[in-house]
Amino acid sequence: MDAFDDHTLPRRGFLQAGAAGAVLLCTIGGKRVALRTPEDGKRADALARAVAAPQAAKDPVDKLTFGTPQPQPGGTAREYWLQARGLRWDVAPTGRDDWHGHAVPRPHKFLALAYQPMTAGFAKPVGPATIPGPTLTAEVGDTIVVHFRNEAESLGQALTVHPHGVRYTPDYDGAYLGDYTRAGGFVAPGEEFTYTWECLPESVGAWPYHDHGPNHTMNSMRGLYGALVIRPKGEKPPDVEFPLFLGALAPPVTRLPRQFQCINSRAYAGNTPTLRANVGQDVAFHVFGVDGFFHDFHIHGHRWKDSGGANIDNQTVGPGESISARFTEDNPGRWLYHCHVFAHQDAGMAGWYLVSP
Amino acid sequence: MDAFDDHTLPRRGFLQAGAAGAVLLCTIGGKRVALRTPEDGKRADALARAVAAPQAAKDPVDKLTFGTPQPQPGGTAREYWLQARGLRWDVAPTGRDDWHGHAVPRPHKFLALAYQPMTAGFAKPVGPATIPGPTLTAEVGDTIVVHFRNEAESLGQALTVHPHGVRYTPDYDGAYLGDYTRAGGFVAPGEEFTYTWECLPESVGAWPYHDHGPNHTMNSMRGLYGALVIRPKGEKPPDVEFPLFLGALAPPVTRLPRQFQCINSRAYAGNTPTLRANVGQDVAFHVFGVDGFFHDFHIHGHRWKDSGGANIDNQTVGPGESISARFTEDNPGRWLYHCHVFAHQDAGMAGWYLVSP
Amino acid sequence: MDAFDDHTLPRRGFLQAGAAGAVLLCTIGGKRVALRTPEDGKRADALARAVAAPQAAKDPVDKLTFGTPQPQPGGTAREYWLQARGLRWDVAPTGRDDWHGHAVPRPHKFLALAYQPMTAGFAKPVGPATIPGPTLTAEVGDTIVVHFRNEAESLGQALTVHPHGVRYTPDYDGAYLGDYTRAGGFVAPGEEFTYTWECLPESVGAWPYHDHGPNHTMNSMRGLYGALVIRPKGEKPPDVEFPLFLGALAPPVTRLPRQFQCINSRAYAGNTPTLRANVGQDVAFHVFGVDGFFHDFHIHGHRWKDSGGANIDNQTVGPGESISARFTEDNPGRWLYHCHVFAHQDAGMAGWYLVSP
Repeated sequence: MDAFDDHTLPRRGFLQAGAAGAVLLCTIGGKRVALRTPEDGKRADALARAVAAPQAAKDPVDKLTFGTPQPQPGGTAREYWLQARGLRWDVAPTGRDDWHGHAVPRPHKFLALAYQPMTAGFAKPVGPATIPGPTLTAEVGDTIVVHFRNEAESLGQALTVHPHGVRYTPDYDGAYLGDYTRAGGFVAPGEEFTYTWECLPESVGAWPYHDHGPNHTMNSMRGLYGALVIRPKGEKPPDVEFPLFLGALAPPVTRLPRQFQCINSRAYAGNTPTLRANVGQDVAFHVFGVDGFFHDFHIHGHRWKDSGGANIDNQTVGPGESISARFTEDNPGRWLYHCHVFAHQDAGMAGWYLVSP
Repeated sequence: MDAFDDHTLPRRGFLQAGAAGAVLLCTIGGKRVALRTPEDGKRADALARAVAAPQAAKDPVDKLTFGTPQPQPGGTAREYWLQARGLRWDVAPTGRDDWHGHAVPRPHKFLALAYQPMTAGFAKPVGPATIPGPTLTAEVGDTIVVHFRNEAESLGQALTVHPHGVRYTPDYDGAYLGDYTRAGGFVAPGEEFTYTWECLPESVGAWPYHDHGPNHTMNSMRGLYGALVIRPKGEKPPDVEFPLFLGALAPPVTRLPRQFQCINSRAYAGNTPTLRANVGQDVAFHVFGVDGFFHDFHIHGHRWKDSGGANIDNQTVGPGESISARFTEDNPGRWLYHCHVFAHQDAGMAGWYLVSP
Repeated sequence: MDAFDDHTLPRRGFLQAGAAGAVLLCTIGGKRVALRTPEDGKRADALARAVAAPQAAKDPVDKLTFGTPQPQPGGTAREYWLQARGLRWDVAPTGRDDWHGHAVPRPHKFLALAYQPMTAGFAKPVGPATIPGPTLTAEVGDTIVVHFRNEAESLGQALTVHPHGVRYTPDYDGAYLGDYTRAGGFVAPGEEFTYTWECLPESVGAWPYHDHGPNHTMNSMRGLYGALVIRPKGEKPPDVEFPLFLGALAPPVTRLPRQFQCINSRAYAGNTPTLRANVGQDVAFHVFGVDGFFHDFHIHGHRWKDSGGANIDNQTVGPGESISARFTEDNPGRWLYHCHVFAHQDAGMAGWYLVSP
């Protein structure tokens, strides 16, 4: 019995996940599980634990071998040490919604997973395990080297790190592919793997990284996600930069009795990030979709440009997608940022953005 | 007892809102309400009536004071007088779907809210209360001055006007922020407030305005929305310009037994706007998402460019988003415009566009 | 009794369509049908059979007459002969998911519809009936001439071909418009119609074509769809080009007990297209939404540019929309492509992309 199964289910009746969410489906170890209830989540976990390491593959492309990419001349290998670990996570640590002034119904803690930044050789934590994982930054021409350790032994499941935007060989894809899985796609509990990714000119942007192991639907939502930001060589970063992950936390994942619509796995203003900037600063909101819903990101009092140059103040963010709202701050005061899908906003997907003169 | 509560509920069984819609959630006055049935809607209304005027705020940014912006040199203050009022609204005044030739099942009237244009000083109506509210137009360098009166006394709830795209100080945000609310975010029944918004170069475009008071999920859907169109200084407007708001009307909002997928709060061709243009005209469809769904706007026989210059004839419109389909008319005849989400189109989100040679 | 009604329903209980899908609504012959069960699908079919040929129309624009467009100087009339026919279609012909290594639960065959390419005069098939229909290609200045025959006599319903992107007069719209329908919008069983469409400069791109007859929600999903690709005059096509249609197959359409999330009407890797390319090739994925859901298309190991030039590797595709992911292939190996909506990916919307060095 491990911590993830020992987690006592609350006795209160479960709200239908349908409150704002479709049923989740997982296919794990050859079984399909419809995730409707916390018991379904436990079953998915049990199946994921039984997934064997991958077998030999079948197509000529599966026999290709690949080197490890090196930085371009003038580039750097940016090394990160990340361990995946379980942690008890509070969706609403203040216990209230600071916008509407109401208490958030208990319980609101669950067994989550996080990518925790470590010092070299996994000697000790750089900081506490938190969600999202650390933002990994690099420039074009660099490589990003992620030493990854699956420390979530009580979960008993293989985990990975799958990046968007950068270039990687199949070895460093970080995706479980069944019988075709390469080493980086199945990092068993207690094991380590080093990923090396290349930052191409067309990698410029902000991207998510997340688990893509055998139980990635659940484990990504549990908190195994973070941001990659790749800049042109020598470009000045924004003065302030906010990675925001929009995603529901559903009962099958959290074993909590209700669904929360979260930003960075936190729900309701005061729990979601309270962001701060000053007039005159170069500000970037990097917003990612990290669940199975489509969201629409809005900031009061501000507007930005889409990739084609149109003026917008509200932008669709689908699952796995990234948008960046970047502008020079010119408007002091207290502002709401929120998902413009009413049902999401009202279930917690909102926060404060405070701008000083 | 007021008109909004006195509205007799139809006796027929209610179709599940789920027909094409997720449950709506509201958080009002510290209580969370899941909107599944008309009774839930009544409860949300009762809670919204009890919301007190906001308290003193807590952060230094909340103590900032702001002036009222003035037009840029050469710009104009564009004044509008709008009152919010209740009205009995027919979702399908012809009683039929002119595309498929069937009767729209009764009942299809409900107690709606509209922004009604008034003459200076709220002396008298400029025109009838209708949905959407009037299109507010301005040029870069102008201010838009909206004198707003909450005339919907029987509703008994604070209302506001929250704009997209323009620049506003926190005083003119028009958003209820709980204890942090500024004056323009809580216009009590019978009260007035004047908003002043700036039209920046990056405000160019078409945008929605809508209620963002304590019960904005329900009251926006009831009809408190309209369009803002900001043009570059001196730019010629299109010859014809159509603001179209895509949004479901759900039973908790309308107290009607079924959900309608509407354009401008009307459902089914012949009730939704029948639009007309001539070959050779410069035509703009401004399309806004005004509910919690994602839509896909399609016009038969026509195509336009997205902001990046790609050729399209179908475009995603999320909640609070705007798109503009602009083209020189070259194709006479009767055309359908509709949401390409089949379930929305078939529940009423379609209309006629008639082009004369 | 015809083949489409004779199709025996499986006895096993039906999973709720809600697993990943909203209820579908159809309006056919003046009746609205909510499609929840296979029986509902049968009822929709019966109603569609009873739809009469359209009556005379009412507005001056309905009396306009139109010629048949000719190619521009230097252009060509590209002729295609397509017949719509029923076929028994296997959603998962291998019987397994080659990604997760599990068996796909039976049954997984259903009565589908396809646009089958024929030789001139419908003399004989060019190839087998398959889904999607053939990709119709042309250049700017050409016309596309589609000789269409409704050979699906056992279905007993009028069918059409409705294109996106190209220019067509109302005669060639291919849309059933009730009393306003023109000839091409109602091709009765056993009948033929020739559509002629113009390829304008602003038609450049990849587009879907699909049924838009009286029962188009069901019949498009049954398989009546294909791709149009219009290129600038003389432009070299990509070396490899993949049309991929993302769409759920729901129980009311298939009369199967569960919903499948499909690519080209096939579910799960090994059944969905296994795509192949070589390093150095100019590759284009043309991705279309063909149901009522929003999807997010992701290819592992690759990235492309959106229309505004931003780097992306994941892109929203709504119903009726098209996106093209085009890049020079530089990354050998086995890659997943999939919808990043977890519930869709896990219900079959994923496939292999194999790149040889």
